[in-house]
Amino acid sequence: MTKGNINVSVENIFPLIKKFLYSDHEIFLRELISNGTDATLKLKHLTSIGESTSEYGNPQIEVKIDKEGKKLHIIDQGIGMTAEEVEKYINQVAFSGAEEFLDKYKDSAKDSGIIGHFGLGFYSAFMVAEKVEIITKSHTGAPAAHWTCDGSPEFTLEEATKEDRGTEIILHIAEDSTEFLEESRIRELLSKYNKFMPIPIKFGTKEINDPEHEPATITDEEGKETKEPHRQITVDDIINNPNPAWTKQPTDLEDEDYKNFYRELYPMQFEDPLFHIHLNVDYPFNLTGILYFPKLGQDMNMQRDKIQLYQNQVFVTDNVEGIVPEFLTMLRGVIDSPDIPLNVSRSYLQADGAVKKISSYITRKVADKLKSLFNNNREDFEAKWNDIKVVIEYGMLSEDKFFEKADAFALYPTVDGTYYTYEELFNKIKANQTDKDGKLVILYASDTDAQHSYIEAAKAKNYEVLLLDSPIVSHLIQKLETTKENISFARVDGDHIDNLIKKDENTISKLDEDQKKVLDELLKEVIPSEKFMVQLEAMDSNASPFIITQPEFMRRMKEMQATGGGGMSMFGNMPEMYNLVVNTNSDLVSEILNKDDKAEQERLINQSLDLARLSQGLLKGEELTNFIKRSYEILK
Amino acid sequence: MTKGNINVSVENIFPLIKKFLYSDHEIFLRELISNGTDATLKLKHLTSIGESTSEYGNPQIEVKIDKEGKKLHIIDQGIGMTAEEVEKYINQVAFSGAEEFLDKYKDSAKDSGIIGHFGLGFYSAFMVAEKVEIITKSHTGAPAAHWTCDGSPEFTLEEATKEDRGTEIILHIAEDSTEFLEESRIRELLSKYNKFMPIPIKFGTKEINDPEHEPATITDEEGKETKEPHRQITVDDIINNPNPAWTKQPTDLEDEDYKNFYRELYPMQFEDPLFHIHLNVDYPFNLTGILYFPKLGQDMNMQRDKIQLYQNQVFVTDNVEGIVPEFLTMLRGVIDSPDIPLNVSRSYLQADGAVKKISSYITRKVADKLKSLFNNNREDFEAKWNDIKVVIEYGMLSEDKFFEKADAFALYPTVDGTYYTYEELFNKIKANQTDKDGKLVILYASDTDAQHSYIEAAKAKNYEVLLLDSPIVSHLIQKLETTKENISFARVDGDHIDNLIKKDENTISKLDEDQKKVLDELLKEVIPSEKFMVQLEAMDSNASPFIITQPEFMRRMKEMQATGGGGMSMFGNMPEMYNLVVNTNSDLVSEILNKDDKAEQERLINQSLDLARLSQGLLKGEELTNFIKRSYEILK
Repeated sequence: MTKGNINVSVENIFPLIKKFLYSDHEIFLRELISNGTDATLKLKHLTSIGESTSEYGNPQIEVKIDKEGKKLHIIDQGIGMTAEEVEKYINQVAFSGAEEFLDKYKDSAKDSGIIGHFGLGFYSAFMVAEKVEIITKSHTGAPAAHWTCDGSPEFTLEEATKEDRGTEIILHIAEDSTEFLEESRIRELLSKYNKFMPIPIKFGTKEINDPEHEPATITDEEGKETKEPHRQITVDDIINNPNPAWTKQPTDLEDEDYKNFYRELYPMQFEDPLFHIHLNVDYPFNLTGILYFPKLGQDMNMQRDKIQLYQNQVFVTDNVEGIVPEFLTMLRGVIDSPDIPLNVSRSYLQADGAVKKISSYITRKVADKLKSLFNNNREDFEAKWNDIKVVIEYGMLSEDKFFEKADAFALYPTVDGTYYTYEELFNKIKANQTDKDGKLVILYASDTDAQHSYIEAAKAKNYEVLLLDSPIVSHLIQKLETTKENISFARVDGDHIDNLIKKDENTISKLDEDQKKVLDELLKEVIPSEKFMVQLEAMDSNASPFIITQPEFMRRMKEMQATGGGGMSMFGNMPEMYNLVVNTNSDLVSEILNKDDKAEQERLINQSLDLARLSQGLLKGEELTNFIKRSYEILK
Repeated sequence: MTKGNINVSVENIFPLIKKFLYSDHEIFLRELISNGTDATLKLKHLTSIGESTSEYGNPQIEVKIDKEGKKLHIIDQGIGMTAEEVEKYINQVAFSGAEEFLDKYKDSAKDSGIIGHFGLGFYSAFMVAEKVEIITKSHTGAPAAHWTCDGSPEFTLEEATKEDRGTEIILHIAEDSTEFLEESRIRELLSKYNKFMPIPIKFGTKEINDPEHEPATITDEEGKETKEPHRQITVDDIINNPNPAWTKQPTDLEDEDYKNFYRELYPMQFEDPLFHIHLNVDYPFNLTGILYFPKLGQDMNMQRDKIQLYQNQVFVTDNVEGIVPEFLTMLRGVIDSPDIPLNVSRSYLQADGAVKKISSYITRKVADKLKSLFNNNREDFEAKWNDIKVVIEYGMLSEDKFFEKADAFALYPTVDGTYYTYEELFNKIKANQTDKDGKLVILYASDTDAQHSYIEAAKAKNYEVLLLDSPIVSHLIQKLETTKENISFARVDGDHIDNLIKKDENTISKLDEDQKKVLDELLKEVIPSEKFMVQLEAMDSNASPFIITQPEFMRRMKEMQATGGGGMSMFGNMPEMYNLVVNTNSDLVSEILNKDDKAEQERLINQSLDLARLSQGLLKGEELTNFIKRSYEILK
């Protein structure tokens, strides 16, 4: 048996690093700025514990494009390196200076925010550069060093004349990467990855009004007053906010601060968020962040990649699938955690214990926040309900824990704009809307316009009609019916109102059995049986003569089918089938029955049927055109 | 100045490989099977050129789970390695045996399909395994070798007793990766990455009906005949199709073969594709593939990640953004090309010359295919039009080259189901639909039901009315109007038909100027001016008394706004404004004018306005309910 050590040669690794270190080459800038940030934070730590005599000051990181020279410079004012340190940290691929530093200063440095882990970031420069230079001067005052490497594993190292503390990286951008010499491209990358990093990043300069100079008022010869123009001064253009809101304590922030931070995150978004949730936990995992509820409306297919994930203020991804429960991916905001393992498969992520805890912590915080918003300012919560309900309803459907908690704040609005909790609704309607079998019937409409006449009929009985118009409402109803006891939901146009909530009252019929039989046969001759089931009912004489209804069960199955899952697939393909309820007590029906002229009877039935179809939105195209023509005739 | 070589130590690299070699750990299986495939293809090549005396046979690759032993085995029957080769290829990280092989056998091996490039794939095993063993026997007959490494860079190598040619890799799956001991998970991965790899892959066995045994017919005592049950035999479960359709010549494939391959690609898809396009080019780049047109319908927000990208039959990604022109991402199918650089940023990809050529080649092939389908079987093409038009129309909008070519096959259907090319339409209507200023007016509807009465009015004049109902149709119309000369599109409900195509004919008005003035004032008293612009027109006395129209320009701007881009944003927020065209020659209008009773006049105007609103779909909610009540009253 032979024993030995696996070998790796830099000649083999280098080409790989150049092509494949990161799947996206643009990452190089994030990595180099992270290194500059680490170098600065290390110095900060050393000065704070008295291990460096250098003056920390207000260091920043500068990014500079030299388009003619085809160079990109990244300059920090951090700890710097001696020639020996360059030898040690740079010439050894994948030797992590950050890890070593954190090991050495274990306890004191653990909250220093130092990012580096694997000592590979620097080499990502070779993904876009054909030659890389480092000019660096250590905080110790040792002579500056100048390192150069053209992408072959050979390097040169010599003394340099740099006077200021810190490190300058110079990338000689390769021919196939000239996109990184464009100002707009670099600005885009800085804004994507570095917008909230903890050390100020300068990218060029900008002109602003001199804040020290108040324009004077000038009075001209005619006594007219004008303002002097503002005096312009040139200042560094700092592209980042080193202290983003989520790193602060909630107690230090006003509502306006949260709104401002939202605008920072989504500059193209003109609408303010409805409210925010500040996440802040350090045991059993580390997580900070702010989630925002935007105005959502009805659409559930919106863009779902609006939550940004950071690690120590460095942008990682906007794909938080598996980390945040799915129903909350409709929200916006940031999450910052060093505890989320990112380079594993998504299926592993979903099974990972720590990630599961994070996910359920977030769910709980969201539920708690909603509850407190509801309790503290119900009026405001009601006003926002329509813009947030899809998230809450989707959460109730998909997470049982959330469903339980949501009982305290989920609202059921009526068509008249009253908002009930489930319990309030229950107490309000149980006397009047319990049917003869003791089942509580909750009436609802999905569209106040389209179902107007049916809503009116229900209101005439003093019934409450909810307005439930979310795309997933049939699923939610199904869930409520199986969770709550002895209740059922019925849409107002599912049947005649007396049949939706059956009481023990009987309306006396004006027609006797013989008359009913005659009427029934007459109707069946005129009304197409493949489209309508005729149903004679003795109703209030003021109720509509003809009413078209669609049975709840089949309609709901079709709807559930359409919004995915839950419904039985056989219903999706069935033709639309309606009931035609004919009010035998209405004057018009008596008149139809009493007419001698068969043609006139048919005309009245057809016109009544058309009016009933209009009411249910079923009269269209040629039939509508004909109805309108006939109606103009009747008018004349 | 110092010169030196950058160093890399295996102790530093190994932990990185374990965690970060690929962003998705599941890739390890694809990599190991690719290695097994390469080993087999190398042997195939050597036997074919007489450099190996081994019997090639029908080699396969086997994947086996040993759940109790927590092991995963990948076994090939390929070229194998001697102990010396293991030392050379395995113990040297990132030394690519495949590259060396291809260098050595340059010309003869260039079409061998060998995949490996960077010699890293094997190490991906350590992402999921705490220990890896290799047992391998070379095709040369040299003694078998057994290599073991527990993830430290130390390995052991000893002789083994393996008799069969080939290599077995044994992964001792790590505690955090036990998902890869689940049969369902491995099957999922094999199906995702290896479904079309060129060497058969065995994963377990399955029972099938013995094809050699025809069940006999048994006659029982009563003379009843029954079939004997099928005899079951156990066979290898081969999970892949080593010769997928796209690797074959189009001339060797029937239509049914393409359909079968579609079902292989999308087993959950029950609908056949409408047609396919076989891509096959080897200069100036290498690309094969098959694209399918599925039935698309109207929805443009469908899932767009249905095209799969392969490299040498190994699945790479289903994100072909930047490689396939955007409008074609609605299609399905596969593309296989070794020439697409994958590990670069998407913005670079879009600027890359080779990728641009690929993209325009695909566009051209699609246009050519559509043209030939149209020419060869127009009837069939017309029947499919509604299912493919969104792709074609979107392509016409987004790619100018495609727009030009589409003139030959883009269709313009009428409401009666006649399909014209642009040229045919032009010739058909130019005599009748050119207005008095010499401009050709193309009439269209977007909904035959909702615009029924308007369509009828146009047909009464023998005008052709197109049915244009795609979501992006207003954009397309805009493009056609600016490309073709002296034409304009007008939706049938944009104005009274005589105003949409103005001719030099004048209908004589029954009313004189004084009467018109009285009518106008009467109408203005009743009709709300903030909703309707009243417009008196002397029309045919049989035309509707009241017609509501919506001016083309503003409606189209609003629509373009709604479907994104192109429209002017100020229109999006403007209230809906309609014209009310009153036919001064209609009997009803005369009657209104001649009534003495003011209340009766108002009633007639209101009822007529309601009928006109019904016709335009504008009567809803309470107003509709009231209209219906009023109509029941009129009926009695």
